[in-house]
Order: sequence, then structure tokens, then C-alpha cells
Amino acid sequence: MIVAAEEARALVQRVLIAAGAPAHAAGMQAELLVEGDLRGHHSHGLQRLPVLLERMRRGLIDPAAHPSYRWASPAFALVDGHHGFGPVIGYDVVDTLLAREQPVAVAAIRNGNHLGMLAPYVERTASAGAVGVILTTSEALVHPWGGRRPMVGTNPIGIAVPTQDEPFVLDMSTGAISRGKVLHHALVGEPLQPGWAVDAAGEPTTDAAKAVDGAVSPFGGPKGYALGLAFELLVASLTGTETGERVLGTLDTEHPSTKGDLFMVLRPAALDAGFRARMGIYLDEVRASPLARGNRRIDVPGDRARRERTERLASGVPIDDEVWKAAQDLLS
Amino acid sequence: MIVAAEEARALVQRVLIAAGAPAHAAGMQAELLVEGDLRGHHSHGLQRLPVLLERMRRGLIDPAAHPSYRWASPAFALVDGHHGFGPVIGYDVVDTLLAREQPVAVAAIRNGNHLGMLAPYVERTASAGAVGVILTTSEALVHPWGGRRPMVGTNPIGIAVPTQDEPFVLDMSTGAISRGKVLHHALVGEPLQPGWAVDAAGEPTTDAAKAVDGAVSPFGGPKGYALGLAFELLVASLTGTETGERVLGTLDTEHPSTKGDLFMVLRPAALDAGFRARMGIYLDEVRASPLARGNRRIDVPGDRARRERTERLASGVPIDDEVWKAAQDLLS
Repeated sequence: MIVAAEEARALVQRVLIAAGAPAHAAGMQAELLVEGDLRGHHSHGLQRLPVLLERMRRGLIDPAAHPSYRWASPAFALVDGHHGFGPVIGYDVVDTLLAREQPVAVAAIRNGNHLGMLAPYVERTASAGAVGVILTTSEALVHPWGGRRPMVGTNPIGIAVPTQDEPFVLDMSTGAISRGKVLHHALVGEPLQPGWAVDAAGEPTTDAAKAVDGAVSPFGGPKGYALGLAFELLVASLTGTETGERVLGTLDTEHPSTKGDLFMVLRPAALDAGFRARMGIYLDEVRASPLARGNRRIDVPGDRARRERTERLASGVPIDDEVWKAAQDLLS
Repeated sequence: MIVAAEEARALVQRVLIAAGAPAHAAGMQAELLVEGDLRGHHSHGLQRLPVLLERMRRGLIDPAAHPSYRWASPAFALVDGHHGFGPVIGYDVVDTLLAREQPVAVAAIRNGNHLGMLAPYVERTASAGAVGVILTTSEALVHPWGGRRPMVGTNPIGIAVPTQDEPFVLDMSTGAISRGKVLHHALVGEPLQPGWAVDAAGEPTTDAAKAVDGAVSPFGGPKGYALGLAFELLVASLTGTETGERVLGTLDTEHPSTKGDLFMVLRPAALDAGFRARMGIYLDEVRASPLARGNRRIDVPGDRARRERTERLASGVPIDDEVWKAAQDLLS
């Protein structure tokens, strides 16, 4: 079904408030879930709501919690999220780092919860004229190159760089595909694309049912594996959080979150208005560069999500009937 | 032919000294070139020497230059490399950032020169117990996803994280392959692997001769393209250096270097001896995890280069006859 974004946001907020969340925190969490659906990443959208609610009921999420900061230097904070909503922590960290007005400011977060899409957070830094970089770990879902057991998180990266108009916005996982997508394909009996996953023996497979018992592949083969593992170590070493199979608590309803998040805000002197214009010109050069045969457009990261979001803000957000019904049921 | 690493290093150093370089600077530059061959990345090895020499002769490299620092905060320096040797700048920056003893310290470098392999620099930070991250731009050699013209650098990334013994060391380009490798395959008439490059029309090709007139592909499809472009913008915006086709001066003998380098050293409190041991245990879990059918080993980034380097330090470095002869000729 198609729902107005504002209607979806309001429903989620009501559900969260009914479950005990303060209105403001519920609003931020609702906003981030709707952003997932608005940008076509339904795995980060309303379908997460039942797990979120169950985590609240079990005390694994404290909806009233606010993050606390221990500054090791003017540029580096260890942040304890006290198991608050991911978006409450994430936005607070962005605003706190921006308020430092340092050329570089870093926050290493533990005791957080699922952030949802990374794009909204780095877009906020870009709106303030700063470069934003986020790395975060997740449950082990990706096999090492040459292996078959999930040992590495899907460890996404978010990067935004301001230009004179729309910012450059990267928000991607280092897995070839989300675990949610594998499960969905298995459910509806659709084949996977080659390179997305392996079966239990570690053989590449396009059979989603077999992939469920296997592992998600890293994007980009051995290089993507190397990068995802590097992000896992970077985040863990800076936040003091867990690695590999000990990362828990974003998909399940049993464990406190043991992942880490790394937020970095950079305000380089070089990035004045003139330079932001030059960045925009370069991105336009990339967009306008000659097409490969069979292609109709060259996008720059952020373009497609922006188009989808704009269109869905205008004409409504497609949400799975069952997901919408489940959200409504949570209210009754 | 097979040459002892020390012999190769000494020859290169002599060549550079004869061309006017101070002994210490020549030694560092020689070391980095030999590290390329020691780790099996010949495109970063002795074959770069003739271009390096020509750049010195034309005044595009000042072998006596030392970098200067403008600290925007205790944690962020704008560095002017004054067109010195890449390794002289790179090692000076690593040592300077380490000496700050800050939880995070960042250097944004302009007016540098080719750094060579990134691994030796981040290994140095790891040896000091710190996490090292390097990003750097290069000439536009990679096509955008959906395009066919080289618009993005091969923009490599280096990351090292200390463990209780050998560090985790990632050193990889965001291109599927180096331009040098395309040229070499074309020269010897060897086919490329699928996904490495496109021809002039933007069609994927395994014909190296056709790829010479086309472009290198990003590793990992659209995600790798997005990441390489993000690194280009990150480095350019923080250093105030060029982007796309305006990045010049690492492969040619005509232009001063207009690329940028970003060095980051992180000394998180979390990364004490106990935590370093936990990082090592995790990497061992990854290495020991079940193999996919047909595989004999799971490596962690840094493992293979370390094995090759150790073996070549013991039994000699394979260097192309022509490359060795060219180096010797530069001395006469």
C-alpha cells in the first residue's frame, strides 16, 4: 500500500509513545524508520518496528536515555549511549560534534542501538557545511574471502561532503546485499543475483533458500572483504566494542547492543564557499561525462535516494501491507 | 632477475644521490620503491624510478624539501609538502602525528609527490600502538558507473590496526586494477580478467589493448565507484587539492603534483594491550573459520604481503630485467 510519509511517521511515533517513549525521542526514531522507506531501503524502514518494540519491552532499549560524553581531547569523545534509541544518540552526537567547531571531531560510541540509515546523520553535518563520516559495525553476516561462515559485519559507511547545492551523500554497506533481502527473496522464491551470497558449503549461489543457510558475500570480492573487516577493526578498536560473532543486539530481541559506531565531523578551512562550488562542478562533470553503451544516466551517490525520496514525499511511501498492519496492531 | 632487496635499495639510493638528492631523503625514497617490489606491487616499485628522476631533473620534485605544518587545532594540520619526495613527506607526517600524542590527529597534505605503497606508513603507526588511516587521490583513471571516461582516481586507502603481534594492514586501490597492469597486459598480449576495464565505448572488455583506450573499472561495481568518488571528495575538500582530470603529477613528467593526501593517526584509550590481544584473537578466528569449497586458506589483509615480503627478503626480489637495466643506466 501507499502511505503518506507524515502518516507513517505519526503512526510510528504514536506506537513508540504508547510503549513508553518520550514524544521527542519517539519522533526521532519514527523519522529514521520512515527515512528508510522513503529512500527505498525497506530493511531499515517500518518493518523494524516490531523488533524495536520488543527490545523496548525487554529493557534492551531505554527510550528515555541520552548519551553522555567523556572527552579525551577537544577532538575525541568516548560516548556512552546508555542503550537509548539509535537516532536519539546519532543526532545528539552529530549536533555535539558540530558544536565543538573543531577542524576535526570524533565520537566513538558504545551502548547504542540501531541507527537506521546513515545518510540523514551525515546530511545534517553537510547542511552545516562540514564533512561527515560514519562507520558502524553489525552482526556477523558476511563470509571472509575464501570462507563460508559469517564472521564479518555488513559494516556500513556513510560519507557526506557539502557542495554549493545538494551534498554528496554515500550510504552503503560493505555486504553485497542485506540479510533481510536474502530472507525476503527466499520467502517469495526470487533468485539472488550472482555474487550476492554463498550456500552452506561456501559455493556462490543464486538460490535464496540455500543462501539463508550460507552467508552474505562482501561486495567487490576480496577488496570488499578487506574493507569490511578493516571497518570492523577500526570501529571496535576506537569504541572498545565487540567483533565478529560477539556483535549482537541490532537484529535480535535478546541481547543488549554490543556494536560500536564511529562519527567524525570535519570542518576544513579549505572547504569555503569557493571550494564547495568546485566540488559541485566536479560532480556535474562526472554526471555529464560520456555514457557507456546501454546506459541512460550517470548518478553520483545520493542522487538516486534523493529522487526517490522527493517522489515519495510527494506521492506516498510504498509499504508492505503486512508491515503496515503489524504497525497498526502494535497500537491496539 | 632476482636481486637482493638491500642491493636494489642501495642502487636506487645511489641513483637518487647522483641526481642531487640528500642521502637521507634518497634512502627513504629508495626504501619505498623497494617495498613495492618486495610486496609484489611492481607498479609501485623500481619501474617508477625513471619518471621520478625526470621529475627531479625538471624541478617537479625537490629532493631537499621538508614538509611544513600549519596547525588549525592540536588535532588538525594543513601540511605543505613543498614538492618533496612522497616518502620524505609521508614518514615525516606519520612521526609528527604520532608525536602529538592526541587521541586523534589529522594531516591534510598538498604539494606532495607519489607516496608509493601506503602500507609502510600505516605499519609505522601500528608499531607505535596507534591506528593509522591514509587516503590519497590519483590521476583520473576510473570510469563512473554507467560511464566510460576516466573521471575518478584509483584513490587508494591504507588502514592499520595494531594487535598483540602482527598488525592488520589494508592497502588497496579503489580501482579494479592499476593502469600499469592494463598497459603491461597489453604489451605482453595477456587478457584481462572480466570486470577490470572497459573499452572506449564503455563495454566491459578482457582485451587489454582495447582497455588502454578505455578506462579502468572501479572494484566492486557501483559501490566501489561510490567509494572511490567519496575518497576523492574527502581528500580534495580537506586538503584543498584538485579533483578528476585536474589531478596531475604522479605518473607524468610534466606537471607538479596536484593530488592530496590525508593521514589520520588515532590512539584510542580503548586500544590497550588487552584490547589489542582481543583484536588478534578475532583475526585468528577469521583465519581459522571454515573454508569455502576449493579454498586452502583464509587470509586477513596484510598476511599475503607479509609472506611475500618475508620470502623476498630472504631469497631476493624479482625485478624485470629492463627495469633493472634502466635503473643501472640512470647511474651512468
